[in-house]
Amino acid sequence: MKKDNISNNVIRRLPRYLRKLDDLLDAGVCRISSFELGKQLGFTPSQIRQDFSCFGGFGLQGYGYNVQELRDSIATILGTDRGYKAVLIGAGHIGHALMDNFCFTQWGFDIIRAFDVDPEKIGEEFGKVTVSPMDELENFLSQNHVDMAVLTVPRSAAVAVAERVTACGVKAIWNFTNVELFEPGSPIIVENVHFSDSLLSLSYYISDAAKEPVSDK
Amino acid sequence: MKKDNISNNVIRRLPRYLRKLDDLLDAGVCRISSFELGKQLGFTPSQIRQDFSCFGGFGLQGYGYNVQELRDSIATILGTDRGYKAVLIGAGHIGHALMDNFCFTQWGFDIIRAFDVDPEKIGEEFGKVTVSPMDELENFLSQNHVDMAVLTVPRSAAVAVAERVTACGVKAIWNFTNVELFEPGSPIIVENVHFSDSLLSLSYYISDAAKEPVSDK
Repeated sequence: MKKDNISNNVIRRLPRYLRKLDDLLDAGVCRISSFELGKQLGFTPSQIRQDFSCFGGFGLQGYGYNVQELRDSIATILGTDRGYKAVLIGAGHIGHALMDNFCFTQWGFDIIRAFDVDPEKIGEEFGKVTVSPMDELENFLSQNHVDMAVLTVPRSAAVAVAERVTACGVKAIWNFTNVELFEPGSPIIVENVHFSDSLLSLSYYISDAAKEPVSDK
Repeated sequence: MKKDNISNNVIRRLPRYLRKLDDLLDAGVCRISSFELGKQLGFTPSQIRQDFSCFGGFGLQGYGYNVQELRDSIATILGTDRGYKAVLIGAGHIGHALMDNFCFTQWGFDIIRAFDVDPEKIGEEFGKVTVSPMDELENFLSQNHVDMAVLTVPRSAAVAVAERVTACGVKAIWNFTNVELFEPGSPIIVENVHFSDSLLSLSYYISDAAKEPVSDK
């Protein structure tokens, strides 16, 4: 039932639905209408029905959505059951913050090794993951199937490291470096975390709110 | 010339234009067509013209865009010239990473104080910013105009801290806690950085690419 071309906007909303549905399950909610779900998320009910219709529905007229089923369907669509293997490259503050506070396994990713160039960081333990020297990268990637690399290296090293991991067959990069790694049209899947984009959107909303006597952002 | 209701999608693309235009200026490019700009960003020329038309155009038929003027116009729209004051709350790894590697002033924000509950972190210097104890928060906010709080505290503290800063009149929060802080419709401006949303989108694209013999993501 899945349509061939699901818009990026729908895909970007799915993780937000997933978070909300997890919260509802935690709160013991088993069933929810598109109206109520929309209210809690700030979306219209028709937006919600339209988003879910891209994947073949899920709801029953007059009943609403079964929260657990909807949650599991969205998780499957997002691929959280695929058991992806990943490496983290760059054991600085961002790398540390991710390894300490971010639950990769909850989202279906298993970080199997970390790498850094800094001799002081090599051998450090990030949970069950050891930081290895960068010159072992190619050898490791040739012996282990790795779906994704988390790139938390300094800006200046970003492109060179991205080229090294993709030359070894890694097809996807979660990019925290604020550098555009490849030209549009590249077969490499890059998901950028651009802090500045987020901050600038915030700046816009602050500026916009200041223009009006009452804001409802 | 600015339209009253600019869609969130357009606003979300503006920071990306700004980054690209900065790169073009660094490379010495003074003038660019919507076709070429689109090619470099992976957008269609008509998308670009449509986005910029929301703010009254900028381009000249047959000439294209003056890169510096376009860059400055977008920066102004985004409010990077407003000199916003901000505080950072939570001096852990994410807070550290932001203070060390992220250039707030480049985007028009001045971090004037950091706060943490951990006695070991109090007194630490983040560049020119000192980490103060959390129990000085209210006093500081009552004596200094602060537009925005960067929230990099643990999940469990998120809502309580958000309530404390907004009770002191702070109108905007840059939220790294992965917690939905307020109900929809709240007058507080919250920009969420949800790492999991980004990772789940990446997971979707990896899964989607695996289904097809050739990917062009």
